[in-house]
Amino acid sequence: MTDRSALLSSESSPTPLRIAESVRAGDDGVTSLADFHRWYEDVGKRSYARVDRVPLDELTGWETDPGTGNIRHHTGRFFTVEGLEVRIPANRVGAWSQPIINQPEVGVLGILVKEFDGVLHCLMQAKVEPGNSNGLQLSPTVQATRSNYTRVHGGRPVPYLEYFQDPARRRVLADVRQSEQGSAFHRKRNRNIVVEVPEDVEVADGFRWLTLGQLHRLLAAEDLINMDARTVLSCLPFAHGELASVLEPAAGDFHPALLRSCDPGGGSLHSTGDILSWITEARTRAEVHTRRVPLAGLPGWRREEGRISHESGAFFDVIGVRVEAGGREVGRWTQPMVDPIGMGVVAFLVREIGGVLHVLMNTRIEAGYMDVVELAPTVQCTPHSYEHLPPEARPLFLDTVLDAAPEQIRFQTVLSEEGGRFYHARNRYLIVESDVDVRFQHPEFRWMTVQQLVELLRHSHYLNIQARSLVACLQSLLMPPDEAPAAEREVRS
Amino acid sequence: MTDRSALLSSESSPTPLRIAESVRAGDDGVTSLADFHRWYEDVGKRSYARVDRVPLDELTGWETDPGTGNIRHHTGRFFTVEGLEVRIPANRVGAWSQPIINQPEVGVLGILVKEFDGVLHCLMQAKVEPGNSNGLQLSPTVQATRSNYTRVHGGRPVPYLEYFQDPARRRVLADVRQSEQGSAFHRKRNRNIVVEVPEDVEVADGFRWLTLGQLHRLLAAEDLINMDARTVLSCLPFAHGELASVLEPAAGDFHPALLRSCDPGGGSLHSTGDILSWITEARTRAEVHTRRVPLAGLPGWRREEGRISHESGAFFDVIGVRVEAGGREVGRWTQPMVDPIGMGVVAFLVREIGGVLHVLMNTRIEAGYMDVVELAPTVQCTPHSYEHLPPEARPLFLDTVLDAAPEQIRFQTVLSEEGGRFYHARNRYLIVESDVDVRFQHPEFRWMTVQQLVELLRHSHYLNIQARSLVACLQSLLMPPDEAPAAEREVRS
Repeated sequence: MTDRSALLSSESSPTPLRIAESVRAGDDGVTSLADFHRWYEDVGKRSYARVDRVPLDELTGWETDPGTGNIRHHTGRFFTVEGLEVRIPANRVGAWSQPIINQPEVGVLGILVKEFDGVLHCLMQAKVEPGNSNGLQLSPTVQATRSNYTRVHGGRPVPYLEYFQDPARRRVLADVRQSEQGSAFHRKRNRNIVVEVPEDVEVADGFRWLTLGQLHRLLAAEDLINMDARTVLSCLPFAHGELASVLEPAAGDFHPALLRSCDPGGGSLHSTGDILSWITEARTRAEVHTRRVPLAGLPGWRREEGRISHESGAFFDVIGVRVEAGGREVGRWTQPMVDPIGMGVVAFLVREIGGVLHVLMNTRIEAGYMDVVELAPTVQCTPHSYEHLPPEARPLFLDTVLDAAPEQIRFQTVLSEEGGRFYHARNRYLIVESDVDVRFQHPEFRWMTVQQLVELLRHSHYLNIQARSLVACLQSLLMPPDEAPAAEREVRS
Repeated sequence: MTDRSALLSSESSPTPLRIAESVRAGDDGVTSLADFHRWYEDVGKRSYARVDRVPLDELTGWETDPGTGNIRHHTGRFFTVEGLEVRIPANRVGAWSQPIINQPEVGVLGILVKEFDGVLHCLMQAKVEPGNSNGLQLSPTVQATRSNYTRVHGGRPVPYLEYFQDPARRRVLADVRQSEQGSAFHRKRNRNIVVEVPEDVEVADGFRWLTLGQLHRLLAAEDLINMDARTVLSCLPFAHGELASVLEPAAGDFHPALLRSCDPGGGSLHSTGDILSWITEARTRAEVHTRRVPLAGLPGWRREEGRISHESGAFFDVIGVRVEAGGREVGRWTQPMVDPIGMGVVAFLVREIGGVLHVLMNTRIEAGYMDVVELAPTVQCTPHSYEHLPPEARPLFLDTVLDAAPEQIRFQTVLSEEGGRFYHARNRYLIVESDVDVRFQHPEFRWMTVQQLVELLRHSHYLNIQARSLVACLQSLLMPPDEAPAAEREVRS
């Protein structure tokens, strides 16, 4: 037998504690938040971004197939807009058709991290995306479709991409493919990857090193941390039994219960085996039939005035935009985008159970998912869609969220969805403490601890993109509450 | 804060130790192996099973679509035989076409377990399947396609199915959907589920309660434990740090290294995070394009003399069979089957690294997988296919396995693949100790510990069906070697 320690790596990696150190460091990083805001404002001024809605027929380089009506780029790359026919026999609305974005390639969302003075910093990019209602948002180090990095559009190379191209040679903190919105994308996935480097890294224009504590403060701001950054942050392995040794439990019940919820030995209402069985049951039971069909003549949808809309005026439009931007890979282009109708509400209901914070998760079917069902937040919907429907049609717990008292709201802000495909898509994200009965029984809901969510996030396609955004928000509550920015106190708007 | 122990379940479940107890119990169960063999022989005599090859054109209830040449049941249920066009740009053989079985529903493979005198027993069924070369094999308690349990074919109800239909009310030891052969099936999956019941269960004709120790002894016999039983057994959570408290380490290096390999704290050459990143990289890199196409006119394949064959005579035939059987749900039927050419070799190379047993796993692309790449055994191939090819075309490590010295062979037997779709499909399964260099570097191979394999087996689609069979075989080596049946000593045959 040889020297074991020399050959074997240990599973008890200190990464979660190093993550906690970076949370605790707060504003004590290589850049102060005050400096960040000055820099960010300056980048914003220097970023030229003009986005105009144009009729789909006036897109350059994009064509509508005369037979199918599908919209595609003349190179055959990027993505296509097609029709999808959906049949879910068990659903209230058992069958429908919809436009869907088909982009069957796996892109890369990567954050480069590096220790400065023993504290992990993330290299973040201030980036303009055409769909952002406010132009600039903070994105991962790298945010590249396969088209981007094979440079189909002939633009400049993607900075820092080389750090993510041979991860086996690097220290990898997270590396997992995750889904995006199954309501708009057909099986779109991105590789979420966090790579740590020991060597010096040149900071390019538009990039800054920030601690997790700083990112968590910025997450509370409206439309600042973009969707891609949120999903990568959510995949960080931040659960550990010794978090309290780094992050001192604050007064009150909430913060200590959150810390215990991150502890793999802290206990949970359901064992992880039972949670996995619940998911297997939901995925086995769900019968979802989808078929890609021509966009032309899609029942319920019409292409008029240069856009595609549902006859009810609900859901989303497919529109065209013309973009002129500085600071991005290519300065000028046109493309189709998805323009959602109404602002959504995305919320975790949380409560302590036996001193451990639990999150009420929902099994959700979306037509575009790779694997039929993913775990979604307690509430994920567009209230506007229910205004003219009878009360019994309202989603479970929507009113619990909308009627929450100010002191129940632990997190609240408005965040944007991905600005490369979605046009001005904004959702109100909330974490709400609630006294929903522990014994509440529903086949589509289960209470889970934070460490159970973190464990599932090592694997693909368990948590949907909205749930992952809220996991990043939960992460930000690891800051003791008195240091955290106050949540806005008005929910209904 | 309420009483925590009252509300929270603990993750440190004793299930792995109870599994170890059942392994240790060996022949000390409610039935002795001697009784089992008498009973099994008796069931064999009473099971009437006659299987004749018939031309595909003479199948009853099955029809060949005049346009596509696809073979389907007249009810539209069960499965279809279609064509698949495959393009894998990175592969040596970059593109091919093949017949494929399309059965897009999730069946159930379930084992019911129950404690007798404190020892877990599995309820196993002696079952005839038309493709079994020897008629009877030992199968899980329940082995049901969705067609089976919705009783499309009008047969009798599936015994014990009700125990697996509402698992949330039961004690579930394992519950996960897993893939089958991606070389023959288009995205076929089954739910592998193990449910424990406290109550008395009536033992129907053809069923017996057996300990894991007994099943492990039977696993060493040729063609006895069927594929469905092996995959369900492989999903049992048998890894635990305290196994040595139940299963005394035997003399020599191998058995102690195996026990340490089951210990989540025992260390591993690569961290689980690095293994997951390796899999993510393989799945992101793999570019596999598949398209279902008509079976008629499939390039390289011809339908002649009532069967479909490749023009080279290699791979497999699609044949028809007529079955008359007693002891199965329906007594008489015909169906298409896949008849593989040549016996395959399926092997784990294992070695101790730092006192911990490691298995050399391979990332393998098969066209029918849900998720492109799964982890396969070190060697999985049909040597016959390589006989007329130059030596450099031979799969890595095939000769290491075939030339292994008797003392290197820890497990060896011939086992059948699923007898409901495959006709006389037999593979030689081996676990071979090897001194392959720890530093051996290849992007498609990694050394993993047993507990890492067990952890991945909680989730879908990581380990392929052949690897899962070998995990069940590895499980059987938990018996101290002097109690284990001697491995056959001849590999090349």
